[in-house]
Amino acid sequence: MKNSTSESSAGPSTLARVSAVSAHLSQNNTKADNSILGLGNPVQSMAAERAAASFPVRELTYFLDGGEEATLVRERLMSEIERDPLFQNIDAYDLNKEQLRERTMKKITRLVHYVVAEPEEVTYQRLSLIGVVDMGLLTRTGVHYGLFFGAIRGSATPKQFSYWISQGAAELKGIIGCFCMTELGHGSNVAGLETTATFDEGSDEFIINTPHVAATKWWIGGAAHTATHTVCFARLIVHGKDYGVKSFVVPLRDPTNYELKPGISIGDIGRKMGRDGIDNGWVQFTNVRIPRQFMLMRHCQVDRHGKVTQPPLEQLTYGALIGGRVSMTADSAQMSKRFVTIAIRYAAVRRQFTAKKGQVETKLLDYALHQRRLLPLLAQTFAIQFSADEILKMHRSLLKNIDSIDPSDKKSMGALIEELKEVFATSAGLKAFSTWACADTIDQTRQACGGHGYSAYNAFGPAYADWVVQCTWEGDNSILALSAGRALIQRYLQVKKGRTAPVSTGYLNKAAELAKATAGSRKIDSPEVLVEAWNAVASAVVCKAGASFEALTKKGKTADEAFEETSQQRFLAARIHTRASMVRMFYDRIATAKPELKEVLYDLAALYALWSIENDSGLFLQAGYFTSAQIDEAKDLTEVYLGKVRKQAIPLTDSFNFSDFFINSAIGRKDGNVYENYFELVKRQNPSKPQAPYYESIIKPFVERKDEPEIEVAELEEDED
Amino acid sequence: MKNSTSESSAGPSTLARVSAVSAHLSQNNTKADNSILGLGNPVQSMAAERAAASFPVRELTYFLDGGEEATLVRERLMSEIERDPLFQNIDAYDLNKEQLRERTMKKITRLVHYVVAEPEEVTYQRLSLIGVVDMGLLTRTGVHYGLFFGAIRGSATPKQFSYWISQGAAELKGIIGCFCMTELGHGSNVAGLETTATFDEGSDEFIINTPHVAATKWWIGGAAHTATHTVCFARLIVHGKDYGVKSFVVPLRDPTNYELKPGISIGDIGRKMGRDGIDNGWVQFTNVRIPRQFMLMRHCQVDRHGKVTQPPLEQLTYGALIGGRVSMTADSAQMSKRFVTIAIRYAAVRRQFTAKKGQVETKLLDYALHQRRLLPLLAQTFAIQFSADEILKMHRSLLKNIDSIDPSDKKSMGALIEELKEVFATSAGLKAFSTWACADTIDQTRQACGGHGYSAYNAFGPAYADWVVQCTWEGDNSILALSAGRALIQRYLQVKKGRTAPVSTGYLNKAAELAKATAGSRKIDSPEVLVEAWNAVASAVVCKAGASFEALTKKGKTADEAFEETSQQRFLAARIHTRASMVRMFYDRIATAKPELKEVLYDLAALYALWSIENDSGLFLQAGYFTSAQIDEAKDLTEVYLGKVRKQAIPLTDSFNFSDFFINSAIGRKDGNVYENYFELVKRQNPSKPQAPYYESIIKPFVERKDEPEIEVAELEEDED
Repeated sequence: MKNSTSESSAGPSTLARVSAVSAHLSQNNTKADNSILGLGNPVQSMAAERAAASFPVRELTYFLDGGEEATLVRERLMSEIERDPLFQNIDAYDLNKEQLRERTMKKITRLVHYVVAEPEEVTYQRLSLIGVVDMGLLTRTGVHYGLFFGAIRGSATPKQFSYWISQGAAELKGIIGCFCMTELGHGSNVAGLETTATFDEGSDEFIINTPHVAATKWWIGGAAHTATHTVCFARLIVHGKDYGVKSFVVPLRDPTNYELKPGISIGDIGRKMGRDGIDNGWVQFTNVRIPRQFMLMRHCQVDRHGKVTQPPLEQLTYGALIGGRVSMTADSAQMSKRFVTIAIRYAAVRRQFTAKKGQVETKLLDYALHQRRLLPLLAQTFAIQFSADEILKMHRSLLKNIDSIDPSDKKSMGALIEELKEVFATSAGLKAFSTWACADTIDQTRQACGGHGYSAYNAFGPAYADWVVQCTWEGDNSILALSAGRALIQRYLQVKKGRTAPVSTGYLNKAAELAKATAGSRKIDSPEVLVEAWNAVASAVVCKAGASFEALTKKGKTADEAFEETSQQRFLAARIHTRASMVRMFYDRIATAKPELKEVLYDLAALYALWSIENDSGLFLQAGYFTSAQIDEAKDLTEVYLGKVRKQAIPLTDSFNFSDFFINSAIGRKDGNVYENYFELVKRQNPSKPQAPYYESIIKPFVERKDEPEIEVAELEEDED
Repeated sequence: MKNSTSESSAGPSTLARVSAVSAHLSQNNTKADNSILGLGNPVQSMAAERAAASFPVRELTYFLDGGEEATLVRERLMSEIERDPLFQNIDAYDLNKEQLRERTMKKITRLVHYVVAEPEEVTYQRLSLIGVVDMGLLTRTGVHYGLFFGAIRGSATPKQFSYWISQGAAELKGIIGCFCMTELGHGSNVAGLETTATFDEGSDEFIINTPHVAATKWWIGGAAHTATHTVCFARLIVHGKDYGVKSFVVPLRDPTNYELKPGISIGDIGRKMGRDGIDNGWVQFTNVRIPRQFMLMRHCQVDRHGKVTQPPLEQLTYGALIGGRVSMTADSAQMSKRFVTIAIRYAAVRRQFTAKKGQVETKLLDYALHQRRLLPLLAQTFAIQFSADEILKMHRSLLKNIDSIDPSDKKSMGALIEELKEVFATSAGLKAFSTWACADTIDQTRQACGGHGYSAYNAFGPAYADWVVQCTWEGDNSILALSAGRALIQRYLQVKKGRTAPVSTGYLNKAAELAKATAGSRKIDSPEVLVEAWNAVASAVVCKAGASFEALTKKGKTADEAFEETSQQRFLAARIHTRASMVRMFYDRIATAKPELKEVLYDLAALYALWSIENDSGLFLQAGYFTSAQIDEAKDLTEVYLGKVRKQAIPLTDSFNFSDFFINSAIGRKDGNVYENYFELVKRQNPSKPQAPYYESIIKPFVERKDEPEIEVAELEEDED
């Protein structure tokens, strides 16, 4: 193969050309020259986007965080995490399961230092921030504090609580807890759990037992490596009677050497889709005996003789359990912020195609379709944030009322139960549709970054894998949506009977009026039309579902049957009701904003509401609220608002106020220097050699293999004659 | 802590109770007793589902595969893969990146044995089957055979082709190829690539060079570990003139020791979202010289003196390039089959909640919402399969016509270009919407399996991570959809000028008629109404997009500007057109089925078409094809067909004919014995110990840590007086 230069045979003109080529080449070898090659200068592009802010970015940060003070606390927490060497995450995307688990445990040992010393609200914020970059760490910490310790605090008697505190449960000293609820065969159906806790009056103990394989406790975070104790959900059996599922503290390991206690079998659940930093395990109990006093008896008591006292209002014990669900809406907002930031930053500097040869290519963010892919998700992120703030407020008020209730005050009790139902249904819908929206956001923003979205170093893949379990745990989204839909039908029936619906379903109080409402000749992008449009459609689908339910029960179906047969309608009702609520809460929140923030927020709200109308245009037509021409107009208006929001896209993502540490994505870094950032990170994480580790064992013998000798099979034939 | 039995203090009645409890416990410890505990017997449940088949399952397999003979070939290939010890995949979900890469290379050494010995169509099928369980292996093999070797075959002159064959390119002996197209800064915009190939007339060589970081070749499969050579896409520069992007064979490594050639820099791209079995790398060329003859010159030639001959019809050179796109629709069908099988099997045995206490719980598959979550995806899988078969046929015919064309026959050339455009546009739309549909199917089926969908051992997470790159590579789906939409507008303009549209857009020939068409009083679930409904809506959106385009050009916009401003409409047109085509192809294919298969296929087609109408109901209302009442009726009918398809769900998934090896999911195995299969696999893959590997180093010191001594800071204070 001839492949040598032959300068000797080249005449002067050739030499001149070669040297011109070389000059051209070395000239192009500098960074600054990107601009003449079509890609522009990404750092300059980013700076120009930032300079075009039409509103005070810092003020918007305060508004999103709930005030300047909140932002300052948040920034302090971020720097405490970011500066700590144990929390470094530059190599996070290269850790395998084993490394992740070890790293996560190490981080927990540091995290506890803060958690023990600070008020709960600060811990809540700290963990929420950690969840933005390390969902596995958030969960593994949450297993002890949120689930194990939370269960003890919520369900133990005061004496029991003091006992577990004295054992070290608050500080993870001598006790690390896990939470044995889910079984292999039962997840959503908690009432169907099959592990038993049988009272043995003779020894004054409970015998905890796993009756068969499908009752094995499954997915138990912390069980495989970490936990010394668990709160176990098991059927209380006393004197042969099944009292349903209650909770029991069961020691799993000897804290001094981590050997399993007798009767305890534990295994590792192994590899998951994501969150491999958590050591999920399975647990089987084989006639494990615990003192009777290890049953958590705040709500239900079993005395020395097996007398069982059930709580008067078990519903109220659930108030604390929805905390996880409530915080998931906030998690959805945080995670959406992170990923719209990455994709919008990339789209603001990535260029592709040019109308005229030789011109700088066009920014992705200037393409109409790219705007449509990303900017509604940006608007949705604000909508999720505002609804998260609202449900958090509702939940805090509920907990306060539960704590201060006088159970003998019947009127207050009635109001409290109503409030509980309201928070239950609202949080169910918000949890379902916001965690789904966030999953979709991570996925869509990844796709909007093209091939680079597929690199682990740009964060999308690992985050998606970690995130999506949010759509399944603490209430499967579909089941929560059905449950929210059930509450809407019940509310419909109540209103029909003359009761007044609360704010969240206020549209039902004027259902008849809304059924006749139309946009008419009003501006369809005005707040009042958009809010009314969503109320009208929510009212229409809820009333339709309610009417179907009534028709079925009138035909003799039981309520359960009628609910089952209206499940598609219940799901739709929950989906549309939740969207309508989010539109309403968006505008309600804008009303509280400083004047200089209102314009950009109104643009975002209109984009969110109009884009949502487009996606469900059939319902708006069926409800008769918009004409077909108005639906077309809504589509055109969506493009108008996309154009407005596009101009503020970078300032808006800046207002989310995440440092590069929390973004943790090479192409999403603030400076916009995507190609160099990304290339440097890839090189740092992959100091590679020309030969593979398996070069000698596999590649070399393969690529150098010889033809197998041809066998002359005919020669093996015996002569026939 | 008191936790011992105290039998001595227990009276006889207590002892009796304890023994009764023990008897109860040991009784429940047997498998057969699952049934009395609410979960039923999953194996029996599965067998009963299977026994309810209303059609000959084996016949449907033949129909899907394209005949009995094709099924037998497929089964032979499956057993060749499944029985080979090198292809074992029971541990696939526990391999880390390094292990996956090594395992994948080892598999390639075996795969080549078959590939070199068999006809191309068989290899195509073999690789397609491999792709079902090992997408990384499919791609890493495809990088050499599909991309490198395919480029040489398609773009080399006969002499060049013989040369590369003689060097071992067909058998991977001495040559393993990769494909350097994509750059860090340019992916979809191939014409904008910046790597240069500058002709040096003096030495009769090309100088390949990477001008700056963003022009680094990126994502190059096989580059990090495997490749000795590459086909490099670079701008041909001759005598200072830029002739655009052409392809060049460039040696990367010395095949005898895998040291890099001078001027070649290669690095490892590292961790990706999925497909970690492929050693993607980056490549930089620094004034690398190759003989002029290493440019692939079938279409464009550069002679000794730098005279460049460009091809007369460069379009025809693209015919081969769409092969990848075409096969991705088939891949989408295969992968959808696998995942609907897993989720439907699980739903047929998993039980949850019961109407009456003590009864066996209800199968997931009997819940209306669960049917709605899964069964439309089952119907869609058939739709994708049938459209994949159709586009494959179109593509084969195109390739045959390209090979046999006489370029001087102008009429045939015109027809051929038309055919090319047709295949281009159709394959673009099908690739985009079928790979998206498949991604959505993996995701939705995972969610339908609840928490167990999140375990790696049930296949969803790894498969999703591996799959989704299909939506980005070989034409980003959004860009392909826009391109399909552009072709639809062009077709609309042609028809307006009096030309007749081909079958795929045949609705445009009767657009005026369809604009007035309504379902009227006909049965809306009849094939003729459903096909007409989709044609009417496709026609409406395409005509609307076309009219917008015309209006813009009349206002003086350039075609490029008008296309950009109609991009939302183009996208919608492509989406609806593709869906309409899939409905049409579904019914066309049923016409060829044996009578005993027709009923179940018609049910599936109706489900697919009706469910699709529901999702786009706004368009059907805007087109005036259905009334609002008919949209409601369509929703009700969807439920009717869900009920019908539910009864045949297990036999339908059986017809896909995948063995447990290809399903590779613990909860998706054919016998339905989900809990035991799953538990055994988890135990096999995770032989765990009570203590974590980092117990001594992290957990023990942490859990046993002592309180820090309290510092009496006051004592450190100097006395003030």
